[in-house]
Amino acid sequence: MMRIKLTVAYDGTGYSGWQIQPNSPTVEAALDDAVYRVSGERIHVTGASRTDAGVHGLGNVAVFDTDMNIPAERWAHALNRYLPEDISVISSVQVASNFHPRHCDTVKTYEYRILSSVFPIPQLRNYSWHVKEKLDISAMQSAAQVLVGEHDFKSFCCVRTQAESTVRTVYSLEVSSVPAPIPGAEFVVIRISGNGFLYNMVRIIAGTLVQVGRGKKSADDVRKMLMAKDRCQAGQTAPPQGLTLVGIEYV
Amino acid sequence: MMRIKLTVAYDGTGYSGWQIQPNSPTVEAALDDAVYRVSGERIHVTGASRTDAGVHGLGNVAVFDTDMNIPAERWAHALNRYLPEDISVISSVQVASNFHPRHCDTVKTYEYRILSSVFPIPQLRNYSWHVKEKLDISAMQSAAQVLVGEHDFKSFCCVRTQAESTVRTVYSLEVSSVPAPIPGAEFVVIRISGNGFLYNMVRIIAGTLVQVGRGKKSADDVRKMLMAKDRCQAGQTAPPQGLTLVGIEYV
Repeated sequence: MMRIKLTVAYDGTGYSGWQIQPNSPTVEAALDDAVYRVSGERIHVTGASRTDAGVHGLGNVAVFDTDMNIPAERWAHALNRYLPEDISVISSVQVASNFHPRHCDTVKTYEYRILSSVFPIPQLRNYSWHVKEKLDISAMQSAAQVLVGEHDFKSFCCVRTQAESTVRTVYSLEVSSVPAPIPGAEFVVIRISGNGFLYNMVRIIAGTLVQVGRGKKSADDVRKMLMAKDRCQAGQTAPPQGLTLVGIEYV
Repeated sequence: MMRIKLTVAYDGTGYSGWQIQPNSPTVEAALDDAVYRVSGERIHVTGASRTDAGVHGLGNVAVFDTDMNIPAERWAHALNRYLPEDISVISSVQVASNFHPRHCDTVKTYEYRILSSVFPIPQLRNYSWHVKEKLDISAMQSAAQVLVGEHDFKSFCCVRTQAESTVRTVYSLEVSSVPAPIPGAEFVVIRISGNGFLYNMVRIIAGTLVQVGRGKKSADDVRKMLMAKDRCQAGQTAPPQGLTLVGIEYV
Protein backbone atom coordinates (compact mmCIF):
# COMPACT_ATOMS: atom_id res chain seq x y z
CA MET A 1 0.00 0.00 0.00
CA MET A 2 1.32 3.39 -1.00
CA ARG A 3 -0.12 6.80 -0.07
CA ILE A 4 0.17 9.26 -2.93
CA LYS A 5 -0.05 13.04 -2.53
CA LEU A 6 -1.21 14.93 -5.60
CA THR A 7 -0.83 18.65 -6.25
CA VAL A 8 -3.75 19.74 -8.39
CA ALA A 9 -4.33 22.81 -10.57
CA TYR A 10 -7.80 23.52 -11.92
CA ASP A 11 -9.98 26.07 -13.59
CA GLY A 12 -12.97 26.19 -11.26
CA THR A 13 -15.26 27.89 -13.80
CA GLY A 14 -17.06 24.72 -14.85
CA TYR A 15 -17.26 23.09 -11.41
CA SER A 16 -19.62 23.26 -8.46
CA GLY A 17 -16.52 23.39 -6.30
CA TRP A 18 -14.10 20.78 -5.04
CA GLN A 19 -16.34 18.61 -2.89
CA ILE A 20 -18.36 15.79 -4.41
CA GLN A 21 -22.09 16.36 -4.67
CA PRO A 22 -24.79 14.52 -6.56
CA ASN A 23 -25.59 15.63 -10.12
CA SER A 24 -22.97 18.40 -10.27
CA PRO A 25 -19.49 18.32 -11.72
CA THR A 26 -16.83 18.61 -9.02
CA VAL A 27 -13.04 18.47 -9.03
CA GLU A 28 -13.05 15.65 -6.47
CA ALA A 29 -15.37 13.49 -8.60
CA ALA A 30 -13.19 14.07 -11.68
CA LEU A 31 -10.09 12.97 -9.72
CA ASP A 32 -11.86 9.89 -8.35
CA ASP A 33 -12.89 9.03 -11.87
CA ALA A 34 -9.34 9.43 -13.24
CA VAL A 35 -7.92 7.26 -10.44
CA TYR A 36 -10.50 4.62 -11.34
CA ARG A 37 -9.58 4.76 -15.00
CA VAL A 38 -5.89 4.32 -14.23
CA SER A 39 -6.21 1.68 -11.51
CA GLY A 40 -9.58 0.01 -12.09
CA GLU A 41 -10.25 0.56 -8.40
CA ARG A 42 -12.90 2.80 -6.84
CA ILE A 43 -10.57 4.76 -4.57
CA HIS A 44 -11.70 8.03 -3.05
CA VAL A 45 -9.22 10.94 -2.98
CA THR A 46 -9.13 13.13 0.14
CA GLY A 47 -8.66 16.84 -0.55
CA ALA A 48 -6.97 19.47 1.57
CA SER A 49 -9.16 22.43 0.73
CA ARG A 50 -12.79 22.29 -0.41
CA THR A 51 -12.81 25.31 -2.66
CA ASP A 52 -16.18 26.79 -3.68
CA ALA A 53 -17.85 26.80 -7.08
CA GLY A 54 -15.92 29.03 -9.49
CA VAL A 55 -12.80 29.24 -7.29
CA HIS A 56 -9.57 28.12 -8.95
CA GLY A 57 -6.64 26.03 -7.79
CA LEU A 58 -2.95 26.10 -8.62
CA GLY A 59 -1.79 23.97 -5.71
CA ASN A 60 -4.62 22.17 -3.97
CA VAL A 61 -3.64 18.80 -2.48
CA ALA A 62 -5.31 15.40 -2.55
CA VAL A 63 -4.17 12.02 -1.27
CA PHE A 64 -5.22 8.43 -1.93
CA ASP A 65 -3.96 4.93 -1.18
CA THR A 66 -3.13 2.42 -3.85
CA ASP A 67 -1.71 -1.07 -4.20
CA MET A 68 -0.76 -0.47 -7.80
CA ASN A 69 2.82 -0.86 -8.81
CA ILE A 70 3.21 2.56 -10.46
CA PRO A 71 6.12 4.77 -9.30
CA ALA A 72 4.64 7.69 -7.33
CA GLU A 73 5.89 10.35 -9.75
CA ARG A 74 4.23 8.60 -12.73
CA TRP A 75 0.76 9.06 -11.26
CA ALA A 76 0.64 12.73 -12.36
CA HIS A 77 1.18 11.75 -16.00
CA ALA A 78 -1.15 8.75 -15.79
CA LEU A 79 -4.01 10.75 -14.26
CA ASN A 80 -3.62 13.67 -16.67
CA ARG A 81 -4.30 11.28 -19.52
CA TYR A 82 -7.84 10.84 -18.19
CA LEU A 83 -8.54 14.23 -16.61
CA PRO A 84 -10.50 16.89 -18.50
CA GLU A 85 -8.45 19.82 -19.77
CA ASP A 86 -9.62 22.09 -16.94
CA ILE A 87 -7.91 19.91 -14.30
CA SER A 88 -4.20 19.07 -14.21
CA VAL A 89 -2.17 17.12 -11.67
CA ILE A 90 1.14 18.97 -11.45
CA SER A 91 2.97 16.63 -9.08
CA SER A 92 2.59 13.24 -7.41
CA VAL A 93 4.80 12.01 -4.58
CA GLN A 94 4.67 9.24 -2.01
CA VAL A 95 3.93 10.34 1.58
CA ALA A 96 3.85 8.54 4.92
CA SER A 97 0.85 6.28 5.37
CA ASN A 98 -0.47 8.46 8.21
CA PHE A 99 -0.23 11.74 6.26
CA HIS A 100 -3.64 13.47 6.15
CA PRO A 101 -3.92 16.64 4.05
CA ARG A 102 -6.27 18.39 6.49
CA HIS A 103 -4.90 17.21 9.83
CA CYS A 104 -1.47 18.75 9.49
CA ASP A 105 0.16 22.04 10.25
CA THR A 106 -0.08 23.93 7.01
CA VAL A 107 0.54 27.30 5.45
CA LYS A 108 -2.15 27.97 2.86
CA THR A 109 -1.76 30.75 0.35
CA TYR A 110 -4.58 32.31 -1.62
CA GLU A 111 -4.59 35.07 -4.20
CA TYR A 112 -7.56 37.28 -4.91
CA ARG A 113 -7.38 39.22 -8.16
CA ILE A 114 -9.34 42.38 -8.95
CA LEU A 115 -9.47 44.19 -12.27
CA SER A 116 -9.98 47.89 -11.55
CA SER A 117 -11.11 49.36 -14.86
CA VAL A 118 -14.02 51.31 -16.35
CA PHE A 119 -14.48 48.56 -18.92
CA PRO A 120 -14.13 44.81 -18.39
CA ILE A 121 -11.47 42.67 -20.10
CA PRO A 122 -13.40 39.66 -21.43
CA GLN A 123 -10.45 37.25 -21.18
CA LEU A 124 -10.32 37.86 -17.42
CA ARG A 125 -14.03 37.54 -16.65
CA ASN A 126 -13.64 34.09 -15.08
CA TYR A 127 -10.37 34.91 -13.31
CA SER A 128 -10.92 38.28 -11.64
CA TRP A 129 -13.48 40.54 -10.01
CA HIS A 130 -14.21 43.53 -12.21
CA VAL A 131 -14.51 46.70 -10.13
CA LYS A 132 -15.18 49.94 -12.00
CA GLU A 133 -13.64 52.33 -9.49
CA LYS A 134 -9.99 53.16 -9.02
CA LEU A 135 -8.99 51.71 -5.66
CA ASP A 136 -6.85 53.38 -3.00
CA ILE A 137 -4.07 50.80 -2.72
CA SER A 138 -2.25 52.36 0.21
CA ALA A 139 -5.48 52.49 2.25
CA MET A 140 -6.03 48.80 1.43
CA GLN A 141 -2.46 48.00 2.47
CA SER A 142 -2.90 49.73 5.84
CA ALA A 143 -6.22 47.99 6.50
CA ALA A 144 -4.73 44.63 5.51
CA GLN A 145 -2.11 44.95 8.27
CA VAL A 146 -4.89 45.01 10.87
CA LEU A 147 -5.76 41.43 9.98
CA VAL A 148 -2.23 39.99 10.16
CA GLY A 149 -1.56 37.82 13.22
CA GLU A 150 -3.62 35.46 15.38
CA HIS A 151 -7.19 36.69 15.70
CA ASP A 152 -10.72 35.46 16.15
CA PHE A 153 -12.02 35.91 12.60
CA LYS A 154 -15.66 35.29 13.48
CA SER A 155 -16.66 38.54 11.74
CA PHE A 156 -14.95 37.30 8.59
CA CYS A 157 -16.62 33.96 8.11
CA CYS A 158 -19.86 32.81 6.65
CA VAL A 159 -22.61 32.38 9.26
CA ARG A 160 -23.04 28.86 7.92
CA THR A 161 -19.57 27.91 9.07
CA GLN A 162 -19.27 24.73 11.15
CA ALA A 163 -15.79 25.36 12.48
CA GLU A 164 -15.45 24.83 16.22
CA SER A 165 -12.94 27.61 16.68
CA THR A 166 -12.87 30.78 14.60
CA VAL A 167 -9.34 31.69 15.68
CA ARG A 168 -6.83 31.63 12.84
CA THR A 169 -3.38 33.05 12.17
CA VAL A 170 -2.76 35.18 9.11
CA TYR A 171 0.98 35.16 8.42
CA SER A 172 0.91 37.76 5.66
CA LEU A 173 -1.64 39.79 3.74
CA GLU A 174 -0.27 41.84 0.89
CA VAL A 175 -2.03 44.16 -1.51
CA SER A 176 -0.23 45.13 -4.70
CA SER A 177 -1.13 46.62 -8.05
CA VAL A 178 0.23 46.28 -11.55
CA PRO A 179 -0.94 47.82 -14.82
CA ALA A 180 -3.55 45.80 -16.72
CA PRO A 181 -3.26 45.56 -20.51
CA ILE A 182 -5.89 48.15 -21.49
CA PRO A 183 -5.53 51.91 -20.98
CA GLY A 184 -6.34 53.17 -17.49
CA ALA A 185 -6.84 49.70 -16.02
CA GLU A 186 -4.95 48.02 -13.21
CA PHE A 187 -4.85 44.68 -11.45
CA VAL A 188 -5.07 44.73 -7.70
CA VAL A 189 -3.81 41.49 -6.18
CA ILE A 190 -4.50 40.47 -2.59
CA ARG A 191 -2.21 37.66 -1.44
CA ILE A 192 -2.85 36.03 1.90
CA SER A 193 -1.06 33.26 3.78
CA GLY A 194 -2.27 31.66 6.97
CA ASN A 195 -2.54 28.45 8.96
CA GLY A 196 -6.09 27.95 7.73
CA PHE A 197 -9.11 29.92 6.64
CA LEU A 198 -12.74 29.82 7.69
CA TYR A 199 -15.53 29.32 5.18
CA ASN A 200 -15.56 32.31 2.79
CA MET A 201 -12.96 34.11 4.92
CA VAL A 202 -10.65 35.10 2.07
CA ARG A 203 -13.54 36.35 -0.06
CA ILE A 204 -14.96 38.38 2.86
CA ILE A 205 -11.52 39.88 3.52
CA ALA A 206 -11.22 40.74 -0.21
CA GLY A 207 -14.70 42.29 -0.23
CA THR A 208 -13.90 44.31 2.88
CA LEU A 209 -10.56 45.52 1.49
CA VAL A 210 -12.30 46.64 -1.72
CA GLN A 211 -14.68 48.71 0.41
CA VAL A 212 -11.59 50.27 1.98
CA GLY A 213 -10.14 50.87 -1.50
CA ARG A 214 -13.36 52.62 -2.49
CA GLY A 215 -13.09 54.90 0.54
CA LYS A 216 -16.21 53.45 2.20
CA LYS A 217 -14.34 51.90 5.14
CA SER A 218 -11.10 52.71 6.97
CA ALA A 219 -8.39 50.62 8.61
CA ASP A 220 -10.00 51.60 11.88
CA ASP A 221 -13.37 50.25 10.71
CA VAL A 222 -11.65 46.96 9.87
CA ARG A 223 -10.19 46.85 13.39
CA LYS A 224 -13.69 47.37 14.82
CA MET A 225 -15.10 44.63 12.58
CA LEU A 226 -12.49 42.20 13.85
CA MET A 227 -13.29 43.12 17.48
CA ALA A 228 -17.07 42.81 16.93
CA LYS A 229 -16.87 39.05 16.20
CA ASP A 230 -20.11 39.40 14.29
CA ARG A 231 -20.47 38.49 10.61
CA CYS A 232 -22.90 41.34 9.97
CA GLN A 233 -20.09 43.79 10.62
CA ALA A 234 -17.68 42.87 7.82
CA GLY A 235 -17.91 43.77 4.17
CA GLN A 236 -19.46 41.94 1.27
CA THR A 237 -18.24 38.55 0.09
CA ALA A 238 -16.16 39.07 -3.07
CA PRO A 239 -17.26 36.86 -6.01
CA PRO A 240 -15.61 33.43 -6.36
CA GLN A 241 -13.93 33.78 -9.76
CA GLY A 242 -11.27 36.21 -8.44
CA LEU A 243 -9.97 33.62 -5.98
CA THR A 244 -7.19 31.07 -6.48
CA LEU A 245 -5.78 28.63 -3.95
CA VAL A 246 -2.11 29.13 -4.82
CA GLY A 247 -0.56 26.46 -2.65
CA ILE A 248 -0.40 24.53 0.59
CA GLU A 249 2.84 24.01 2.45
CA TYR A 250 3.07 21.23 5.03
CA VAL A 251 5.30 22.34 7.89
CA MET B 1 -23.56 61.61 -39.87
CA MET B 2 -20.84 60.69 -37.43
CA ARG B 3 -18.10 58.09 -37.88
CA ILE B 4 -17.37 56.25 -34.63
CA LYS B 5 -14.16 54.32 -33.98
CA LEU B 6 -14.45 51.53 -31.44
CA THR B 7 -11.61 49.79 -29.61
CA VAL B 8 -12.69 46.24 -28.94
CA ALA B 9 -11.40 43.60 -26.50
CA TYR B 10 -12.60 40.02 -26.83
CA ASP B 11 -12.01 36.48 -25.74
CA GLY B 12 -11.77 34.66 -29.07
CA THR B 13 -12.34 31.20 -27.56
CA GLY B 14 -15.99 30.98 -28.49
CA TYR B 15 -15.75 32.65 -31.91
CA SER B 16 -14.97 31.52 -35.44
CA GLY B 17 -12.82 34.63 -35.70
CA TRP B 18 -13.58 38.27 -36.35
CA GLN B 19 -15.04 38.15 -39.82
CA ILE B 20 -18.74 37.45 -40.39
CA GLN B 21 -19.58 34.05 -41.79
CA PRO B 22 -22.86 32.19 -42.07
CA ASN B 23 -23.92 29.95 -39.17
CA SER B 24 -20.87 30.65 -37.00
CA PRO B 25 -20.51 33.11 -34.13
CA THR B 26 -18.12 35.94 -35.00
CA VAL B 27 -17.01 39.10 -33.21
CA GLU B 28 -18.10 41.24 -36.17
CA ALA B 29 -21.63 39.80 -36.15
CA ALA B 30 -21.92 40.37 -32.39
CA LEU B 31 -20.90 44.02 -32.86
CA ASP B 32 -23.33 44.52 -35.76
CA ASP B 33 -26.05 43.08 -33.59
CA ALA B 34 -25.23 45.34 -30.64
CA VAL B 35 -25.20 48.42 -32.93
CA TYR B 36 -28.62 47.36 -34.18
CA ARG B 37 -29.97 46.95 -30.68
CA VAL B 38 -28.76 50.42 -29.69
CA SER B 39 -29.72 52.26 -32.87
CA GLY B 40 -32.44 50.18 -34.48
CA GLU B 41 -30.45 50.44 -37.69
CA ARG B 42 -28.73 47.63 -39.59
CA ILE B 43 -25.29 49.24 -39.76
CA HIS B 44 -22.25 47.15 -40.59
CA VAL B 45 -19.05 47.75 -38.62
CA THR B 46 -15.73 47.66 -40.50
CA GLY B 47 -12.89 45.99 -38.62
CA ALA B 48 -9.19 46.70 -38.79
CA SER B 49 -7.87 43.19 -38.29
CA ARG B 50 -9.70 39.97 -39.11
CA THR B 51 -8.32 37.77 -36.37
CA ASP B 52 -8.68 34.00 -36.70
CA ALA B 53 -10.84 31.62 -34.69
CA GLY B 54 -9.55 31.37 -31.13
CA VAL B 55 -7.32 34.47 -31.38
CA HIS B 56 -7.98 37.17 -28.79
CA GLY B 57 -8.19 40.94 -28.95
CA LEU B 58 -7.33 43.67 -26.49
CA GLY B 59 -7.32 46.53 -28.97
CA ASN B 60 -8.88 45.63 -32.30
CA VAL B 61 -10.59 48.54 -34.05
CA ALA B 62 -13.94 48.83 -35.78
CA VAL B 63 -15.72 51.84 -37.30
CA PHE B 64 -19.31 52.58 -38.30
CA ASP B 65 -21.39 55.56 -39.34
CA THR B 66 -24.45 56.68 -37.47
CA ASP B 67 -27.01 59.48 -37.53
CA MET B 68 -27.94 58.87 -33.92
CA ASN B 69 -27.59 61.70 -31.50
CA ILE B 70 -25.44 59.84 -28.95
CA PRO B 71 -22.16 61.45 -27.87
CA ALA B 72 -19.30 59.38 -29.34
CA GLU B 73 -17.88 58.35 -25.97
CA ARG B 74 -21.27 57.01 -24.81
CA TRP B 75 -21.32 54.38 -27.56
CA ALA B 76 -18.89 52.13 -25.62
CA HIS B 77 -21.25 51.99 -22.65
CA ALA B 78 -24.37 51.63 -24.82
CA LEU B 79 -22.91 48.75 -26.86
CA ASN B 80 -21.55 46.90 -23.82
CA ARG B 81 -25.09 46.69 -22.48
CA TYR B 82 -25.95 44.41 -25.42
CA LEU B 83 -22.66 42.62 -26.06
CA PRO B 84 -22.02 39.15 -24.64
CA GLU B 85 -19.57 38.99 -21.75
CA ASP B 86 -16.74 37.76 -23.98
CA ILE B 87 -16.70 41.01 -25.98
CA SER B 88 -16.16 44.49 -24.53
CA VAL B 89 -15.89 47.86 -26.24
CA ILE B 90 -13.19 49.70 -24.29
CA SER B 91 -13.38 53.07 -26.06
CA SER B 92 -15.49 54.93 -28.62
CA VAL B 93 -14.41 58.17 -30.25
CA GLN B 94 -15.48 60.21 -33.25
CA VAL B 95 -13.11 60.13 -36.24
CA ALA B 96 -12.99 61.94 -39.58
CA SER B 97 -15.61 60.74 -42.07
CA ASN B 98 -12.88 59.44 -44.40
CA PHE B 99 -11.08 57.43 -41.70
CA HIS B 100 -10.82 53.76 -42.73
CA PRO B 101 -9.33 51.33 -40.22
CA ARG B 102 -7.50 49.27 -42.84
CA HIS B 103 -6.40 51.97 -45.28
CA CYS B 104 -4.21 53.90 -42.91
CA ASP B 105 -0.63 53.83 -41.77
CA THR B 106 -0.71 51.74 -38.65
CA VAL B 107 1.49 50.11 -36.09
CA LYS B 108 -0.05 46.82 -35.04
CA THR B 109 1.14 45.00 -31.95
CA TYR B 110 0.54 41.33 -31.21
CA GLU B 111 1.57 39.20 -28.28
CA TYR B 112 2.06 35.45 -28.46
CA ARG B 113 2.15 33.67 -25.11
CA ILE B 114 3.74 30.29 -24.47
CA LEU B 115 3.58 28.28 -21.26
CA SER B 116 6.78 26.26 -21.01
CA SER B 117 6.05 23.63 -18.39
CA VAL B 118 5.99 19.85 -17.97
CA PHE B 119 2.35 20.08 -16.86
CA PRO B 120 -0.33 22.39 -18.25
CA ILE B 121 -2.03 25.11 -16.19
CA PRO B 122 -5.75 24.64 -16.88
CA GLN B 123 -6.65 28.32 -16.40
CA LEU B 124 -4.32 29.23 -19.28
CA ARG B 125 -5.43 26.59 -21.77
CA ASN B 126 -7.36 29.07 -23.89
CA TYR B 127 -4.78 31.85 -23.57
CA SER B 128 -1.42 30.23 -24.22
CA TRP B 129 0.38 27.49 -26.13
CA HIS B 130 1.53 24.77 -23.78
CA VAL B 131 5.02 23.57 -24.70
CA LYS B 132 6.56 20.87 -22.52
CA GLU B 133 10.23 21.68 -23.16
CA LYS B 134 12.30 24.37 -21.54
CA LEU B 135 13.04 26.93 -24.27
CA ASP B 136 16.37 28.62 -24.97
CA ILE B 137 15.27 32.25 -24.62
CA SER B 138 18.53 33.83 -25.72
CA ALA B 139 18.59 31.74 -28.92
CA MET B 140 15.00 32.87 -29.57
CA GLN B 141 16.00 36.49 -28.98
CA SER B 142 18.89 36.27 -31.46
CA ALA B 143 16.71 34.63 -34.10
CA ALA B 144 13.98 37.23 -33.57
CA GLN B 145 16.40 40.01 -34.49
CA VAL B 146 16.81 38.48 -37.97
CA LEU B 147 13.16 39.29 -38.70
CA VAL B 148 13.22 42.93 -37.59
CA GLY B 149 13.12 45.46 -40.43
CA GLU B 150 11.57 45.60 -43.90
CA HIS B 151 11.57 42.16 -45.51
CA ASP B 152 9.65 40.04 -47.94
CA PHE B 153 7.89 37.71 -45.49
CA LYS B 154 6.62 35.30 -48.13
CA SER B 155 8.14 32.35 -46.22
CA PHE B 156 6.16 33.42 -43.15
CA CYS B 157 2.66 33.57 -44.56
CA CYS B 158 -0.03 31.06 -45.22
CA VAL B 159 -0.02 29.81 -48.82
CA ARG B 160 -3.70 30.81 -48.93
CA THR B 161 -2.78 34.47 -48.53
CA GLN B 162 -4.29 36.90 -51.03
CA ALA B 163 -2.02 39.81 -50.30
CA GLU B 164 -0.53 41.48 -53.36
CA SER B 165 2.76 42.28 -51.74
CA THR B 166 4.38 40.15 -49.07
CA VAL B 167 6.78 42.90 -47.98
CA ARG B 168 6.18 44.13 -44.44
CA THR B 169 8.15 46.04 -41.83
CA VAL B 170 8.61 44.57 -38.37
CA TYR B 171 9.49 47.44 -36.02
CA SER B 172 10.26 45.28 -33.02
CA LEU B 173 10.18 41.62 -32.05
CA GLU B 174 10.94 40.86 -28.43
CA VAL B 175 11.11 37.57 -26.60
CA SER B 176 10.95 37.62 -22.81
CA SER B 177 10.29 35.16 -20.05
CA VAL B 178 8.76 35.40 -16.60
CA PRO B 179 8.08 32.71 -14.00
CA ALA B 180 4.68 31.02 -14.29
CA PRO B 181 2.76 30.27 -11.08
CA ILE B 182 3.56 26.55 -10.75
CA PRO B 183 6.99 25.11 -9.90
CA GLY B 184 9.43 24.87 -12.80
CA ALA B 185 7.14 26.62 -15.28
CA GLU B 186 7.72 29.82 -17.20
CA PHE B 187 5.86 32.08 -19.58
CA VAL B 188 7.62 32.97 -22.79
CA VAL B 189 6.10 36.05 -24.39
CA ILE B 190 6.77 37.07 -27.99
CA ARG B 191 5.77 40.67 -28.65
CA ILE B 192 5.83 41.94 -32.21
CA SER B 193 5.04 45.35 -33.72
CA GLY B 194 4.87 46.10 -37.42
CA ASN B 195 3.10 48.06 -40.12
CA GLY B 196 0.96 45.04 -40.95
CA PHE B 197 1.08 41.27 -40.90
CA LEU B 198 0.34 38.67 -43.55
CA TYR B 199 -2.17 35.90 -42.97
CA ASN B 200 -0.88 33.68 -40.12
CA MET B 201 2.45 35.55 -40.12
CA VAL B 202 2.64 36.10 -36.36
CA ARG B 203 1.71 32.48 -35.63
CA ILE B 204 4.30 31.18 -38.11
CA ILE B 205 6.94 33.44 -36.56
CA ALA B 206 5.95 32.16 -33.09
CA GLY B 207 6.10 28.54 -34.29
CA THR B 208 9.50 29.12 -35.87
CA LEU B 209 10.89 30.82 -32.77
CA VAL B 210 9.72 27.90 -30.63
CA GLN B 211 11.66 25.56 -32.91
CA VAL B 212 14.68 27.77 -32.26
CA GLY B 213 13.96 27.64 -28.52
CA ARG B 214 13.87 23.84 -28.74
CA GLY B 215 17.28 23.84 -30.44
CA LYS B 216 15.87 22.50 -33.74
CA LYS B 217 16.63 25.67 -35.71
CA SER B 218 19.22 28.44 -35.44
CA ALA B 219 19.17 32.18 -36.11
CA ASP B 220 21.02 31.35 -39.30
CA ASP B 221 18.26 28.93 -40.35
CA VAL B 222 15.73 31.72 -39.81
CA ARG B 223 17.81 33.99 -42.04
CA LYS B 224 17.78 31.32 -44.76
CA MET B 225 14.01 30.85 -44.37
CA LEU B 226 13.49 34.56 -44.88
CA MET B 227 15.71 34.53 -48.00
CA ALA B 228 13.96 31.45 -49.44
CA LYS B 229 10.60 33.26 -49.86
CA ASP B 230 8.92 29.86 -49.71
CA ARG B 231 6.33 28.92 -47.11
CA CYS B 232 7.56 25.34 -46.90
CA GLN B 233 10.79 26.63 -45.39
CA ALA B 234 9.46 28.22 -42.20
CA GLY B 235 8.38 26.50 -39.01
CA GLN B 236 4.99 25.26 -37.89
CA THR B 237 2.07 27.60 -37.33
CA ALA B 238 1.63 28.10 -33.59
CA PRO B 239 -1.92 27.43 -32.33
CA PRO B 240 -4.36 30.37 -32.24
CA GLN B 241 -5.16 30.56 -28.53
CA GLY B 242 -1.69 31.92 -27.64
CA LEU B 243 -2.20 35.00 -29.81
CA THR B 244 -3.63 38.37 -28.82
CA LEU B 245 -3.96 41.49 -30.95
CA VAL B 246 -2.78 43.98 -28.33
CA GLY B 247 -3.43 47.20 -30.17
CA ILE B 248 -3.40 49.28 -33.34
CA GLU B 249 -1.89 52.71 -33.46
CA TYR B 250 -2.84 55.05 -36.30
CA VAL B 251 0.14 57.16 -37.24
